[in-house]
Amino acid sequence: MSVKSPLARPFPQSPLIEGATARVARAGYKDWGRCDLTFVELSEGTTVAGVTTQNICCSSEVELCRNNVKGGKARALVVNAGNSNAFTGRRGLEAVEAITSKVAAHLGCDTGSIFVSSTGVIGVPLPKDKAEAGLDAVFNAEPCSWEDATNTIGTTDTFAKGATASAIVNGTKVNIVGIIKGSGMIAPDMATMLGYIFTDAAVDAAFLQQILSESNQNSFSCITVDSDTSTSDTVLAFATGKAGNTLLRSFADAGSDAFASAFQDVCLQLAHLVVRDGEGAQKFIAINVTGAVNDTSARRVGLAIANSPLVKTAIAGEDGNWGRVVMAVGKAGEPADRDLLSISFGGTQVAKYGLPVDNYNETPVAQHLKEQDIEIGVDLGLGNGRATVWTCDLTHGYISINADYRS
Amino acid sequence: MSVKSPLARPFPQSPLIEGATARVARAGYKDWGRCDLTFVELSEGTTVAGVTTQNICCSSEVELCRNNVKGGKARALVVNAGNSNAFTGRRGLEAVEAITSKVAAHLGCDTGSIFVSSTGVIGVPLPKDKAEAGLDAVFNAEPCSWEDATNTIGTTDTFAKGATASAIVNGTKVNIVGIIKGSGMIAPDMATMLGYIFTDAAVDAAFLQQILSESNQNSFSCITVDSDTSTSDTVLAFATGKAGNTLLRSFADAGSDAFASAFQDVCLQLAHLVVRDGEGAQKFIAINVTGAVNDTSARRVGLAIANSPLVKTAIAGEDGNWGRVVMAVGKAGEPADRDLLSISFGGTQVAKYGLPVDNYNETPVAQHLKEQDIEIGVDLGLGNGRATVWTCDLTHGYISINADYRS
Repeated sequence: MSVKSPLARPFPQSPLIEGATARVARAGYKDWGRCDLTFVELSEGTTVAGVTTQNICCSSEVELCRNNVKGGKARALVVNAGNSNAFTGRRGLEAVEAITSKVAAHLGCDTGSIFVSSTGVIGVPLPKDKAEAGLDAVFNAEPCSWEDATNTIGTTDTFAKGATASAIVNGTKVNIVGIIKGSGMIAPDMATMLGYIFTDAAVDAAFLQQILSESNQNSFSCITVDSDTSTSDTVLAFATGKAGNTLLRSFADAGSDAFASAFQDVCLQLAHLVVRDGEGAQKFIAINVTGAVNDTSARRVGLAIANSPLVKTAIAGEDGNWGRVVMAVGKAGEPADRDLLSISFGGTQVAKYGLPVDNYNETPVAQHLKEQDIEIGVDLGLGNGRATVWTCDLTHGYISINADYRS
Repeated sequence: MSVKSPLARPFPQSPLIEGATARVARAGYKDWGRCDLTFVELSEGTTVAGVTTQNICCSSEVELCRNNVKGGKARALVVNAGNSNAFTGRRGLEAVEAITSKVAAHLGCDTGSIFVSSTGVIGVPLPKDKAEAGLDAVFNAEPCSWEDATNTIGTTDTFAKGATASAIVNGTKVNIVGIIKGSGMIAPDMATMLGYIFTDAAVDAAFLQQILSESNQNSFSCITVDSDTSTSDTVLAFATGKAGNTLLRSFADAGSDAFASAFQDVCLQLAHLVVRDGEGAQKFIAINVTGAVNDTSARRVGLAIANSPLVKTAIAGEDGNWGRVVMAVGKAGEPADRDLLSISFGGTQVAKYGLPVDNYNETPVAQHLKEQDIEIGVDLGLGNGRATVWTCDLTHGYISINADYRS
C-alpha cells in the first residue's frame, strides 16, 4: 500500500457474520508479494442483491453478477485484485467461467450462485491458471478476519475500509458488515466500486435489492473522486439468514425499518471511506445543495460542483474561491437563477441572492478551509429539492499517482 | 505572464484590418503593472455576430453582448482583464452601463453598438471609477498592434494567441484576424472564452452569425482543458466592410465559400491555441472518434475521453493506458458496444473489436507518447458519425496554478 491517506479511519471492530466465512490466498496476478484472491463462502439459503456500474464497457464479471443477482441466491464470492479482466473478450470470459465452475464443484452447488469480481488494470485477460491455482490454495486456507479480506480486495487503496452496524429485528439482533475498495476512477452512476455487505439477517432477495438500491441512491451515487466511472465495479449484499429473525419481505414487516436504516448507515459509512481514500485526497468535502427544483436536480448540481477541477483545486489551496462554485452551478445544466443563488463555506454565508454578502468577513471561512473536513452549502432558492454529495480535493498526489501508474 | 507553455506558438504576422483600430491602456483592475483595458474602435457599418457561454450564471457583459448582437451593428469593443465582473448583481451591471455610456458619448453612437467583455476573478464588482479613468486614457492612446491587444486581454495565458487568414471574395482580397484568451475554465458548450475575430470583408450580420455558429461547432465547441465552463466568455466576430467586396448575404453569393472557409480556419487555429495554452499543458492531444451513430454522439464520446482525468494523467505520464480510453467511452452515455470498439495511439492500433491486438508491439506507441502532439483514435464500429476533439494533458502544473490562484 502507498502512504496512508491523511483522511484514513481505523478499520472497525467487526462482528462475525454467521454463514459468511472469508479466506484469502495469493494467486499472483501481479508481482506484489501479497494476497490478491478473496473467497467468501456463504451458507445455503443466503439471499443476494446487487447494483453494478452503468459504464457500457463493463467487464464479464459485472455481466455475471447482474445475471446471477436475478436468481437471488448466493453460495460464494470470489474477488481478484490486480487485474480487472475488463475489455478482454472471450479469454476474459473463459477465466470467469473457470472460476465459477471450480467453486461450484468445490461447494457442490450451481454456478448461478457464484459471484466474481476483478479489479486492477484493464485489457489484460485474467490468467486462468493463476486463478485456478489460487482457488486451490484458498480452499485450504484458514478463515480470516474482515480486515484481512478488505486488504486483499484493495489495489491503490491506502487503508482498509469497512463499516458495521446492527439492528434489533423483531427482538433478534442482526449484524451487518460492509467492506469496500476504491480510491480512483470513482464516479458511480447508480453504483460502482467493489463493495460487499454481509448480514446474518434473513431478508428476502427482492426486498434486499430494494433496500440496496434505495441506500445506493443516497450513498454510493452521491460520491465522486475524479468523475471517471469504472468499468468493473459492483456492490453486492448477502444475507445469510443465520441470525434467526423472521424473514423480512417488505417495509410492512416489523423490523424492516430498523434493518434498512442500519443497512443504509453501513452504505453511507463505506461511501465516505472511499472518498477519504480518494487518490491524493487531503480534504473531505461535503456539498449540501438545497432549494433545487427536486432532489435529482440537487444531486446533479452537487456532482457538478464536486467534479469541478477548479473547485477541487481551490479547496486543496484552502482558498474560499466561491466564484468557482457559482461557475460549477451554472454549468450543471439544471434549473438555477444567478440572482437567487446563495453560497456558504462551513456555515458562513459568503454570497446571498447573487451577490457577495455585505461586510463579508473572510476570517471564519479561511479558518474553516484549513480544516480537514470541509462543508460547502449551496441554496438555489427555487424549490425544496436537496442532496448531499461528497468528494475530496484535487492535489499533486492525484497527478503523481495517475501519471505514474503503469498500464 | 507565467512561464510560457512548451506548446506555445509565435504570434502571426497580422494584417491591418481597415475600420478596426485597437488601443490599450492601464485601468489598474489588478495590481500587476500592465495594460488591462483594450478598446477596439470599429467604423460605421461594421456588422457583428456572437456566440456566448451556456453557463446559466453568466455575467452582465455576456447578457449585454447577447442583446446587442441582435441589432447586428458594432462601433466598439471594450475588454477588461483582471476582473470578470460575474456574479456581481446590480453593481456589476452599473459598471457595464457606465462603460457603454461613456464609449457611446465618445463615438457619438448608440449604446446598442458597444460590446463589453470582462475576464478574471468572479464575484468582485468591476470598479466603475477605474473603468472610466481607463477609458479616458485609452481614448488618447496611440493605436497598437493586434499582438499588444492580445497580451492585454489575457489573464493566466502564457502566450499571445492570434490567427490570420485571407480569402479572395469576388476578386477582392479580404483579411481576417482573430485573437483569443483563455487557458483554464475551458469547456465550451456552444462557445466560450474571450475570442474576437475582425475582418474587413463586407458580410451581412445574419450571415456572419451563421458562419460563426457553424465554425464554432467544429472548433471552440470541440476543445476542453478542464471540463469547467466559464461564466463570462464570448466569441464575437466583426466585419467592417472596408475591403470593398460585394456584400456577402448567404452561401449562394460568389465568394461566400472562400470567406467562410478562411473564417473557419481562423476559428480552428484559435481553438487549438487555447488548448496549447491549457493550464499546465505539456502535450497537445487530438482525439479522433469515428464509427459513432452520428456526429453529435462522436463529439460527446470525444469530450468524455478529453475530460477524463485518468486519460489526461496517463498521457502526462506518457503511458499508453488504453484501458482508460475504454472506460471513458463507456461512461459517455452514448451508444457504444465494447466488442466493436477499436483504439489506436498515433496510428498504431492497440485494440480491435474489444480485444488487445494480437502480438501488440508497444514500441511505436511508447515512441509516439514521448512526442508533444498526441493522437488518439477511437472507432466505435456503429455508424458514420465522426468528430475530432482537442485537449491537453493534466499535470502538476494545473494543480499548482489552480491551488494557488487567489480568489
